[in-house]
Amino acid sequence: MSAVFADETTLRYALAFEAGLARAEAAEGLIKQSDADEIVKACESISIRPDELAAEAAFAGTLAIPLLKHLRSKLSKDVAGKLHRGATSQDVADTILACQMRDAEVLLTLDVDRILKALATLAVQHASTPAIGRTLLQDALPVGLGLRFAQWHAGLADGGRRLANDVRTYAGLQFGGAAGTRANLEGKGTSVAARLASALNLADGPPWHGRRTGIAAIATSVAIVVGALGKMARDISLLSQNAVNEVREPAVPGRGGSSVMAHKRNPTGCQIALSATYRAPGLATGILSGLVAEEERGLGGWQAEAPALADLFLVAAGSAQAMAGVAEGLEVDPAAIARNLNAADVGHDIGESATLVKALLGKQG
Amino acid sequence: MSAVFADETTLRYALAFEAGLARAEAAEGLIKQSDADEIVKACESISIRPDELAAEAAFAGTLAIPLLKHLRSKLSKDVAGKLHRGATSQDVADTILACQMRDAEVLLTLDVDRILKALATLAVQHASTPAIGRTLLQDALPVGLGLRFAQWHAGLADGGRRLANDVRTYAGLQFGGAAGTRANLEGKGTSVAARLASALNLADGPPWHGRRTGIAAIATSVAIVVGALGKMARDISLLSQNAVNEVREPAVPGRGGSSVMAHKRNPTGCQIALSATYRAPGLATGILSGLVAEEERGLGGWQAEAPALADLFLVAAGSAQAMAGVAEGLEVDPAAIARNLNAADVGHDIGESATLVKALLGKQG
Amino acid sequence: MSAVFADETTLRYALAFEAGLARAEAAEGLIKQSDADEIVKACESISIRPDELAAEAAFAGTLAIPLLKHLRSKLSKDVAGKLHRGATSQDVADTILACQMRDAEVLLTLDVDRILKALATLAVQHASTPAIGRTLLQDALPVGLGLRFAQWHAGLADGGRRLANDVRTYAGLQFGGAAGTRANLEGKGTSVAARLASALNLADGPPWHGRRTGIAAIATSVAIVVGALGKMARDISLLSQNAVNEVREPAVPGRGGSSVMAHKRNPTGCQIALSATYRAPGLATGILSGLVAEEERGLGGWQAEAPALADLFLVAAGSAQAMAGVAEGLEVDPAAIARNLNAADVGHDIGESATLVKALLGKQG
Amino acid sequence: MSAVFADETTLRYALAFEAGLARAEAAEGLIKQSDADEIVKACESISIRPDELAAEAAFAGTLAIPLLKHLRSKLSKDVAGKLHRGATSQDVADTILACQMRDAEVLLTLDVDRILKALATLAVQHASTPAIGRTLLQDALPVGLGLRFAQWHAGLADGGRRLANDVRTYAGLQFGGAAGTRANLEGKGTSVAARLASALNLADGPPWHGRRTGIAAIATSVAIVVGALGKMARDISLLSQNAVNEVREPAVPGRGGSSVMAHKRNPTGCQIALSATYRAPGLATGILSGLVAEEERGLGGWQAEAPALADLFLVAAGSAQAMAGVAEGLEVDPAAIARNLNAADVGHDIGESATLVKALLGKQG
Repeated sequence: MSAVFADETTLRYALAFEAGLARAEAAEGLIKQSDADEIVKACESISIRPDELAAEAAFAGTLAIPLLKHLRSKLSKDVAGKLHRGATSQDVADTILACQMRDAEVLLTLDVDRILKALATLAVQHASTPAIGRTLLQDALPVGLGLRFAQWHAGLADGGRRLANDVRTYAGLQFGGAAGTRANLEGKGTSVAARLASALNLADGPPWHGRRTGIAAIATSVAIVVGALGKMARDISLLSQNAVNEVREPAVPGRGGSSVMAHKRNPTGCQIALSATYRAPGLATGILSGLVAEEERGLGGWQAEAPALADLFLVAAGSAQAMAGVAEGLEVDPAAIARNLNAADVGHDIGESATLVKALLGKQG
Repeated sequence: MSAVFADETTLRYALAFEAGLARAEAAEGLIKQSDADEIVKACESISIRPDELAAEAAFAGTLAIPLLKHLRSKLSKDVAGKLHRGATSQDVADTILACQMRDAEVLLTLDVDRILKALATLAVQHASTPAIGRTLLQDALPVGLGLRFAQWHAGLADGGRRLANDVRTYAGLQFGGAAGTRANLEGKGTSVAARLASALNLADGPPWHGRRTGIAAIATSVAIVVGALGKMARDISLLSQNAVNEVREPAVPGRGGSSVMAHKRNPTGCQIALSATYRAPGLATGILSGLVAEEERGLGGWQAEAPALADLFLVAAGSAQAMAGVAEGLEVDPAAIARNLNAADVGHDIGESATLVKALLGKQG
Repeated sequence: MSAVFADETTLRYALAFEAGLARAEAAEGLIKQSDADEIVKACESISIRPDELAAEAAFAGTLAIPLLKHLRSKLSKDVAGKLHRGATSQDVADTILACQMRDAEVLLTLDVDRILKALATLAVQHASTPAIGRTLLQDALPVGLGLRFAQWHAGLADGGRRLANDVRTYAGLQFGGAAGTRANLEGKGTSVAARLASALNLADGPPWHGRRTGIAAIATSVAIVVGALGKMARDISLLSQNAVNEVREPAVPGRGGSSVMAHKRNPTGCQIALSATYRAPGLATGILSGLVAEEERGLGGWQAEAPALADLFLVAAGSAQAMAGVAEGLEVDPAAIARNLNAADVGHDIGESATLVKALLGKQG
Repeated sequence: MSAVFADETTLRYALAFEAGLARAEAAEGLIKQSDADEIVKACESISIRPDELAAEAAFAGTLAIPLLKHLRSKLSKDVAGKLHRGATSQDVADTILACQMRDAEVLLTLDVDRILKALATLAVQHASTPAIGRTLLQDALPVGLGLRFAQWHAGLADGGRRLANDVRTYAGLQFGGAAGTRANLEGKGTSVAARLASALNLADGPPWHGRRTGIAAIATSVAIVVGALGKMARDISLLSQNAVNEVREPAVPGRGGSSVMAHKRNPTGCQIALSATYRAPGLATGILSGLVAEEERGLGGWQAEAPALADLFLVAAGSAQAMAGVAEGLEVDPAAIARNLNAADVGHDIGESATLVKALLGKQG
């Protein structure tokens, strides 16, 4: 996931944007095919240090200015004037971000799917195993142990579906030019956008320079996934307290040890997932606050989105990866479960737990 | 909107839950029809002071305990034992909240639709009127004035659609009993739930006591609607600065005056909408943080949801109502628009603004 | 605490502001003493329904306009023109808020002090009682039980001190007039402010219409107090899990019961305090976001402060009151503590717990 | 500022902790002086790649474990057992964080002081220059232009002072051992802590493993500094709108340009500062949420603090650096100021602006 938001990737997608734009404009007759070829070749062959470009962009206040300077130095004077036609710096920045969010969602889903698979198996396997249910941190009545797993599954599956849908809908091409009107394109802006979106494998649509509702939707959906993972982590960490001991994270050599207590086995996977739950809501908050972008391009709000989104996906990825390991190797202790249930002395009636497990897993279908 | 979250409404839905449950359980043969009739009659005829019940609930830590005490005092001893069968206090609380969110969304949509209608009209009317576009708070290039309105429209329409969808999906019946297993219902819990959901006009599904992703989805979607309204408010307040003066809120007698400056006309509608944007993200944050609910019923997190959700819908409603008045009466000053455009000296090319207006409004269809 | 932020209190302080201002201006010779007397009398005798005034203020966009209208109707025409001289509506609103924050801090401190006293006693009493310490939710090494109480004490004492200091420093008079320059006061604005601050028992200083750092300081300090209370609540709720059972909230008749499980004793005090921890950070966030107030008086940000601050103090008060009861009646179970410690099998060495207890309590001095 | 939170610095302070601890323990007779010498020498001579250590720490769930492994490989077997005596991994991590916060505050203050100096000069210079004051984004009454600068100054000076005070108070040594009791130190823990704190130039005090109020205090104070900088940035960006044009950021070659509009001069310094205001509140929120740390060491909350604090100081530093350049080079346009004031037609009475400037600047003294 770090790679998705690395300077290298930013540079690669920036070049893909400029190359794709040149191709699309040539196809629409806005620039000559030979000019496009020269631009594409420059994009493919130019050697820019990603970290230096990032520093230049930070100074300039925008990525496009230093990028275009580098590219133009590789082009004949005539063709240099054809580069980036009809585009603006935010077009490049937002389109890069869209590509990154799309890629990030794919990566995240790999780990989420591992968890879902492991939980579905656990849920079915333990659907009818009675365990003491706990409400408000107090023993309540029995539950089917599998129902607990199925509820984690349902929350995560739901969060994942919603995020996937938001990314598909909103991580689309940004292409509007300086004021978002697609000016200076001889009326062919819509066609150029369609071609460029297709080349970059992004959804097409009108520009959204000042309309950030889609970004906010994605950000909050990531935060919900983090929360669903955190719910699972909190439960596992509670259930693996020494006095409870019903489940345990798998032992991973070199992880979860203590620098002084050899006997300890810390819930390090849960720690990572819970740590993410203290980061994600606040990161999403900043993006929600940025919705009030000024006029055709906001000052401050949208520039804060990219680092916050990168952090959101990074903490989500760390959480999902950690919990995938936890879910796949979860150790369940039937004896402890039986002992705790008996201690509660509330019988063994797990009601319709098994039916609910099926219903909850089925929602995923 | 205050009425939706008032103590009276809470009480009304609480009684509807208990009455509906009795009816559903009678239909499934779990209690006698005559018992159900007695319960329904008590729910319909009981006189409880909503504010007193709220105080009792705050003390008890849950609404259901004092409510049931009141109801049981109206029932024969035998029937008193049949009340609330298979349910738990969170079933009542969450189902009330679901009803309130459903009602709140309907109310909010009324004002959102007023705004959308007004903006669509403005967007079409001014689609080709050139105005100076501004990026980073600086004059940039011309835009079609209607494109600005259409972008507001698209953001708000999108936010509204997403919220409606989330409410429809997630504001569903909660019915799981003490540990969320539908125990003590002779295997008929699923059928009882289906009947009860239908009676209350809510979506049916497995219990979600400890799985709060749906609540978080709704909360963040409300915050996005607030942000979309705030974007519009920020733009209007910037455009109505004295030195810009391109649009103005309608004059409303008794509103927007100054206690000392008779000449002032303050953008009070925008003030309300912008004020909401400083409240909503933080309110949503708290709900995202609460996703890590402990085991079968969390301690602290879900209890914090109801007041935060009520506040979210209240600030959203205040914002939407204010901006509906603003949108419907928005004063546009063509002379000022032309003057500012000419001062920028960047020509009049508005690119494909008119095409984009159509595309943006069409997305709403 | 509700009373501090009730419409009645708002009205009372609004009238105190106008009366105090008239007196101060008369003392400085800006208005006649007889005019001041008439204004003071009107402020003391006028009958306004607080809820109606609140509704009028919401419509007008500011409290001062309807308030002044009511007051002027009670004054002779001449004196009506002397009312509110040199003041603006935000002067009234902010000064009311300052009075409310000052009062709220006093109330909150009453309960905080109850907790501190109870914790100090518990800490000393159990300073050398060995108990198993837990890190990352796993058994670690022994601690002196009193050290745990002393740490809660230190966090809360520290938070309380910081809040008290912030309120003393920042909850001061606002008096600047329409643009914050103290115009129209014949150069006597500083003197009028000093008199008015003294009359209202508030700190004096330059106006802070657009400078909201003080408000943000208070808000975040309240959130820290809420967090310190929540830390204590989380620990108590963990320690009172059935399988741990080392401490318990005191039983309070009618509180903490379950609507279905007679055997349950829920940690309802902790629930209230933990619930507050899901509200306060987000409420503080909104106020931090509002620091970027526009020019001489912001649009949206400061108007969002009053309801957020009221909610902050309300959830803090609910938390402190609940935890005062918990701390004063905390049930400690030495047998369970010994049993859990022995089960951990890590000896009984509590290191310098007793010394640390003294150091931590001493910091309170 | 990046250097303060870089892996290199983390490693350097980790080694300083272990070396300082060995020295302190030798001085107290807990280990032999020759053992301490060997440990100190190892800490000074060991070559560890900071990025590799960071990766190992991420895997292990704590920095200390891989660090100690590296160090022990350089020590004789006997001495290896003396390393890290009485300490735990969180002691290392929190002490590093304390050193970093202390250093970060120093760096931040350098830029804050540049701004304060520039603003004080501007405030005095323009104390009596009349300019139109604006409230709710509408022209109001005149202000002394210097009063605006003095208000920015007061907010920032106040925020800076509060942060400095919090860092001095709370960025102290963490030294408590596995359960925070200073066990295994033969009763000399307090003395060891005093020596170690002194060696690291940190405040001394009892351990705060589970008591995070100090961290929250620092985090919120940074957010307030960011807000004070953002207030200034918002005002400057509003005042430099083309239609207003009263002040401008200094032109910096290569900064603030547009990739398509050669005529534009974007407020890039303000953009950076405003962008920070969309990040900081949410980052602080997460730390406030983490106050409810579990028992003797929390699971998830405190692990989320370090990255959030680093981000807070980084966005604050970026903001302060940008605004230092803006403040030092701020271009004031007297003609535009006079023109806008005349257009408002509300006279030239700036009240007691000059007096207030003095009062506001004097508070800094």
